[in-house]
Order: sequence, then structure tokens, then C-alpha cells
Amino acid sequence: MNGPLASDGALQRVLDRLASGEAAALERLFLLLAIPSVSTDPAYHQACLDAAEYCAGALREIGFEARVEPTLGKPMVVGHWRAAPAAEPRPHVLFYGHYDVQPPEPLEEWSTPPFAPHLVEDPHYGAVIVARGASDDQGQLMTFIEAARAWLNEHGQLPVDVSVLIEGEEESGSPSLAPFLVAHGDEFRADIALVCDTGQWDADTPAITAFLRGLAFSEITISGPSRDLHSGLYGGPALNPLRVLSEVLAALHDENGRVAIAGFYDDVRAPSPAQLGAWRALGFDGASFLGAVGLSEAAGEKSFSVLEQLWSRPTVEINGIVGGYGGPGTKTVIPAHATAKLSFRLVPRQDPSRIISGLHRFVEDRLPADASASFAHEGGSPAVGFDTSAPAFQAATRALEAEWGKTPAIVGCGASIPIVESFRSRLDMDALLIGFALDDDRIHSPNEKYNLKSFNKGARSWARILGELGAIDGAVRP
Amino acid sequence: MNGPLASDGALQRVLDRLASGEAAALERLFLLLAIPSVSTDPAYHQACLDAAEYCAGALREIGFEARVEPTLGKPMVVGHWRAAPAAEPRPHVLFYGHYDVQPPEPLEEWSTPPFAPHLVEDPHYGAVIVARGASDDQGQLMTFIEAARAWLNEHGQLPVDVSVLIEGEEESGSPSLAPFLVAHGDEFRADIALVCDTGQWDADTPAITAFLRGLAFSEITISGPSRDLHSGLYGGPALNPLRVLSEVLAALHDENGRVAIAGFYDDVRAPSPAQLGAWRALGFDGASFLGAVGLSEAAGEKSFSVLEQLWSRPTVEINGIVGGYGGPGTKTVIPAHATAKLSFRLVPRQDPSRIISGLHRFVEDRLPADASASFAHEGGSPAVGFDTSAPAFQAATRALEAEWGKTPAIVGCGASIPIVESFRSRLDMDALLIGFALDDDRIHSPNEKYNLKSFNKGARSWARILGELGAIDGAVRP
Repeated sequence: MNGPLASDGALQRVLDRLASGEAAALERLFLLLAIPSVSTDPAYHQACLDAAEYCAGALREIGFEARVEPTLGKPMVVGHWRAAPAAEPRPHVLFYGHYDVQPPEPLEEWSTPPFAPHLVEDPHYGAVIVARGASDDQGQLMTFIEAARAWLNEHGQLPVDVSVLIEGEEESGSPSLAPFLVAHGDEFRADIALVCDTGQWDADTPAITAFLRGLAFSEITISGPSRDLHSGLYGGPALNPLRVLSEVLAALHDENGRVAIAGFYDDVRAPSPAQLGAWRALGFDGASFLGAVGLSEAAGEKSFSVLEQLWSRPTVEINGIVGGYGGPGTKTVIPAHATAKLSFRLVPRQDPSRIISGLHRFVEDRLPADASASFAHEGGSPAVGFDTSAPAFQAATRALEAEWGKTPAIVGCGASIPIVESFRSRLDMDALLIGFALDDDRIHSPNEKYNLKSFNKGARSWARILGELGAIDGAVRP
Repeated sequence: MNGPLASDGALQRVLDRLASGEAAALERLFLLLAIPSVSTDPAYHQACLDAAEYCAGALREIGFEARVEPTLGKPMVVGHWRAAPAAEPRPHVLFYGHYDVQPPEPLEEWSTPPFAPHLVEDPHYGAVIVARGASDDQGQLMTFIEAARAWLNEHGQLPVDVSVLIEGEEESGSPSLAPFLVAHGDEFRADIALVCDTGQWDADTPAITAFLRGLAFSEITISGPSRDLHSGLYGGPALNPLRVLSEVLAALHDENGRVAIAGFYDDVRAPSPAQLGAWRALGFDGASFLGAVGLSEAAGEKSFSVLEQLWSRPTVEINGIVGGYGGPGTKTVIPAHATAKLSFRLVPRQDPSRIISGLHRFVEDRLPADASASFAHEGGSPAVGFDTSAPAFQAATRALEAEWGKTPAIVGCGASIPIVESFRSRLDMDALLIGFALDDDRIHSPNEKYNLKSFNKGARSWARILGELGAIDGAVRP
């Protein structure tokens, strides 16, 4: 790093600037949260374009070269800030986030409209930001942009070269990301990626996520009669696709909670004793984790702890069923079709395409006469894990310790961030997964929130991480 | 019957009047079909009121005293035509129909808008009337009113005294009917009820329905976590209500297609050998019945024929499932709740409330830890059967033979008409169930139709039945 930025004083001025600018930063976040950028629903397409333009504008305002790059789906926001060519070789990081959000439904369970961001006083956390996207991922994304803003406004430069890639389809399977990286990948090749889509260990302890489950998803439609039938005139002899679907779905798990698809566990390895020991040392309280969402017993594979079920075991979940009459009152119908949306969480070595093929065979083997199955909306990405002894991980650990006064937890995550796997397989880059969400942020649920503390300390954490990355002596890459 | 109406000439003049008035009758039916009187969906409440007023107006126009009687739900249409008090005692019949219709969804499967009635030329049937309600029950209902119109316009009187009761909640479980009959039952006590909500045996053969399955229905909601969860962050240890619901629903049937609820068959008796013999004599073609809706194999209880499965065996059907994300694309959610709508078809001696209690126990016995079940929208009515040797049945048989040139088939029906059971239990009245629908009328489905021949010959059939009932010598009641 060039001299002036390496001093503690330089960092302190950045942190002071963040402190004095908190109200303005929150206003900038609220402007983004007010845009209903739901990528999975075509009705919100224009809002997604608006959110992309907002992010590109924010980057330009602080000194990045930024553009909105079209794709077949939602556009990518691309930005770069690089030191003058004369400067010595510097570390180069790629920051990734997503501007799209989950659908807000069911709307009736929100206390306030999902795209009217506002602060709510929480008895435990103090001020929390409530809106769809507050935590996942717009609030998190803006912690990094605010950190970069403070460095640039204070010093006119960043401690490292920074590229930014903000996609708009993370919540709908990222279909444009792979072709985009094929076409533009070289532009984003950096020493390491920074990804802000994960959580803290708890409200007072930061975390670096070193392992993510993979994902595979599919939508099954079972068809039977050639049209909807009256259940009185046909009930009994007529095949009911809802019954067939229920039977197929009920067979997905055996009585021990194991997934019953043939070969599903073939490639699964147990974590090392050292890994399991480190997890135990975290003192994770499975009962509290479940109790916070009204549950008392782990529903997954028997003989595995809650943390093992989340971090080291693959799953299949039914995410939705639609079939027959769903409106108010009754309708005595036997529907022609019934549909279920499924998703799998995968662990290292499991291949999403093999998992999906196994599902197809599983369903087809269970179809009675006159029933047929079709599959749609399929995709996925494998699980990933990182070497946490690498210099960038150590730099980030120091920065988080300085901000939070605690060693960050090195954790796994049950959820999937397909981009992380793409960065590794396509651009040969590891990723630093650091985020400031909490388990109770209600992401993907009504009344999503992000603690104001997460937002403010998140920006300070990134400011420190940028400083530490700039101070790495030697290669950043592991 | 008083003299002038008893002659063949009097009937012929009525039939001639029907023949010359067919176009006008069809126009009157189209006005009713254009009203979207969907009783189960509150959005159509005003349309239900409009349909009730239309029916009352039609009755007044032809000489009935008629009124629209409010209930807590949709109003009843009530009408009476009685001969001058001076006349000798005459038979008195109660005609029942319903002006409400099924929801039209799924709208995208209709070739033309459901409430824009029009004639379509069918290669097999000739002209058919296409609209929601064309067959069930507005077209059928109007066959009777047109028959009464022709008698009254031609002769100024009907061969029998006629009361009319047209309800507006038949498609949503008739919740107001029982309290209405408690309050107003005496007004409708007649010698026999005439109900036009059933079908012909085939396109050329009329039928009298002497047995109807009963109905019981329930909506089950399984609840698990206290809110919707992210399936990555919680998938594995968190209970998924969609999985619990699938497992409960899959357990409803055993591997032989029998309903697995304890005690479900306790009160079921096999039909008599004579009854089974009569059914066999009908020459019902189960393969064609199923083939017409794209099916090749009976999916009900093994060891029973298709006709037995429909007329003599009880069933449970899943009519709808709603849970999790059902919109376009994917959403990796574990929902807090999942709901299924179920309906049972019952045979004589089965008690709907016992069946519903059995369902509750069945579901509750299968709930894992942390899952709870609630039940809503429950109701039902028992199955019914009639003595077909009674004078009114014989009179109707003669009338249908005269119109169609064929002996009517005496049949069962898999569907339920709760009013028929209410007439029997509350007003001690049997019912003549005669209708002109066909199995392929797509009732409750998109593109519902009613053959123009059914409409025209249906009106002629009722004109003849009224004449034959008027000519009964002695008691009409069995």
C-alpha cells in the first residue's frame, strides 16, 4: 500500500467520516430499499432496472467507473476503481453483491409495506431497518459501498484496487451469471473476491464463512386426467395428481429423516474430527436456534446435531405446492395437474446435475398408470470451502477483531451463494465471505430487518478490511 | 287434474309452443349465464344478487308469486303458483335448482370468456351452449322454468301446484339452506320435490337418479415454524409443514386404494345382488368413461368396477393444496403453514360428522413434534336413495319415455346434492332427480357446455312430467 493510507491515522479518519455520515448513509440505503427489485417475478422488471441504475450511480458518485451491462435477464452493475498506472503493483479485490430481492409475499403478514423502509425500535437490538432487502442483500451491499465512499471522500483513493460486480438475479438462480462470466470474466479476475451475503456468528461476534452448501432445484408437475374433473362424478376411479404428488413427496425421506433418493449420499464425506472439534468449540446452541422459530426438535437426519445437519449434511426441501383449488371456500375438483417446487442443499463432492437426474428417476419410478411427470426451472451449483490460513483471510480476521473486539468465528453456512463457486471454477478466485446479517433478520420472510448496528459497524468493518488488505506484504492469493 | 289440461291435445299445444319459442328461450338463458354468480368467492357477491333477481323476475313474468329472500349468505329465490282455491285438491310439487356457479378458474384454459355465453357447433352433438353454469345448473334450471312458461302462456295454468326454491350457495356447501328450511320449511312442504341437477344416461337416453353419494369436506392446515424460513439457513433441522402435509395425505390411501382412516368403512354395506344386476344391465363402459378424460385404468379401490367405485364406494379426494411459494420462478422457503382441501364422497349409512372426526384423529395421530393441525370449512350431508316404484317416479318414467322414445335409466350418481337429503330429513319429501346434463359437459371445469338438445328436450321433458304428475290418480307421495 502506498504510504499515506497505511497509517493508523489514515484509517481513523475514515472511521470518523463514517461516524459523522451515518444519517446520510442510511438515507442512501432507504432510496435503494424503496425500489421493489423482485427478480423472480416479471411484474417487477422495471424496478430491477431502476435498482441497477441506482447502484451504478452510487459507484460513479464516489469515483468508480461504473456501467449497467445488459444480460438476457436482469442487468449486471459493473464498477472499477484503480490507482493511477504509475503506482506500484497493488492488491486487487472484486466485491460482489446483488441488488435483487425475494418476493415480499405473503403481503398480509408484513406489519408495514415491504418497500417502505423505516427504522423500528427493537427492545433487544435498538434501531432496526425494516424492509424487503434490508438484510438480503441491499443493506449488506451498501456497507461495502459506504466503506469505499468514506476512503475515497477522505483520501481520494482506496488502499487496494477494487472492482465491483452487482447482479440482479441472485434470488432467482442467477441464470445470467455463468454466460456473463464466460463473456466478461477477465474483467473481474482479481486476487480475491469479497462477498457480503452472509451473517455474523451472533449480535456481538463477526464471522467469516469458510463453507457453503450447494444448491440444486427443480419444479415437478404431475399430470393425470386430460382436464379438471368433478370429484363427485369422477372421484374414486379417476387418478388424482394431487394424491400422486403427495405420495411421491412423502417418499422423499425415510423414517430416519434421510433422503431416500438412490445414490443421494454416494459422494458425501464426513467432516474431519478436527473440523467437528472446531464446530463444537463454537458452542452453538441448537435448542435456541430452533426455539427462536418456534421449534423444539431437530427434524433432519437423526444422529446428527443441528449444526451438522446445517453445515455438513445435504437435504431436500419442498418449497411450494400448487394444485387444485386454492381460493376461498370449497371446490370439489380433481385437478389435471399438480406442481411442487423442490430444492436440495448439497455438501462438497455432490454434483447438482447428478442429484437432479436422481430425482427424475425417483419420481418416474413412483408414477402409477396414467400419471406423467415433467420437470422445469432446474439448476444448481456445488458446495464450496476455503483455506482459511491464506493471507487475505488472516487480514480480514485482524480487521474484524479490531472492530468488534472479538476473534471472528470461522463458520459454515447452510445456504448457497452460487457466485462463490463460479468465482472459483471460472476465475480461480477464492472468496472472503463476510456479512453482518443475523439469524433473526427474517430474510425471505415478512418483516425482513437489518440491525442499524450491523449496517454501521458493517461499513466500519469493510473500511478496516480494505486497509488490512492493502497492508498485506506479498501475495494476497493463497 | 282439471279437465282441459288432461288431454293429449293440451300437452301438444304446450310442446308446440316450446318448439316455436326455442330462440327466445335461449336468449333468456344467455342473460342468466352472463351473470358471474360465483358463490364461493366474495368478489362475485353482487353478481349472485343479480342472478337471484333475474330468476325471481323470470318467475313473476310467467305468473308466479316470487320473491328474493335474504339469508346470511346468498339469497334464496322463492316462487309459488297455485290453482284458484275453488279447484279440487291437486298435487303439489317443489322445484329446486341453484343459480350460483363454480369459480371459472383456471381462466387461461377457457377458449372464450366463461361469462360470455354463445353457441358452438360441435361435430358430434351439433349446437352446444358454452359458458360457466351452462350445464350446472343454470341451463338445467331454465329447462323447468321454460316448461312452466309454456304451460302458463298456453293454458293460463299448470297441471299441478308448483313451488320453486332456487338457492345461491349450492357450489359452496349450502350453508344457509338448513337454517332457511328450519325457518321457512312449511312453505315448501309438497308431495314431491323435482330436482334438475343430474344427468342423462347418454346423449339419447334420459335417466332418473335414485341414489346420490353423500359429501363431507374439510380444510386441513399444518403449522410448524413460527414464520417462513430460508431453506438454506434452516433446511435440515427445521420442520417443513409441506413435508408433514405430504406424508399425511399420502397415508390417506393404502396400497389397494382403500381409505386408511380407522373406521371409515364401518357403516358401508354392499349393494344387493339385484341392485348390482340392474347396474350390470346398464352396460356401462368404464373404459370409455375413463378414456374420455385421458385415463386408462381405474385408480380407486381394487376389486370394484368403475361403476361400483362411483355409485357404491366412498372416497376421499384432495381437491387442492396451497403452501410455500407458488409464483413464477423459485423461492427457497420453508413455509410456516401448508393447507389441503379434502372432500369425501359417502354411501348410505355413513355419517359425515363421524367421517370428519375420523379424519381429525387420523391427522393428529400422524403429526411429528412441533407440528400442529387446524381444520376449517367443514360440513357435509349423508347419501340418499329412493323407492322408484312410487307413483311420481312411474309418472316421470312415462313422460321421459314419451319424449325420448326410450325407457329412462334408473341410476346412481357419485356426486352429492345436499338439498335432497334435507328435503327428506326436514320435510319428509322424496325427490325426482331428473336432469339433462351429459358426462362430458365439463361442469366445474373450463369450457363448460350444455347441449342445445339437452336444453330444448329438457324443457319438453318437464312439460310432459308436469302433465303426467297432474294426471296421477290418488296420492302422489309414495
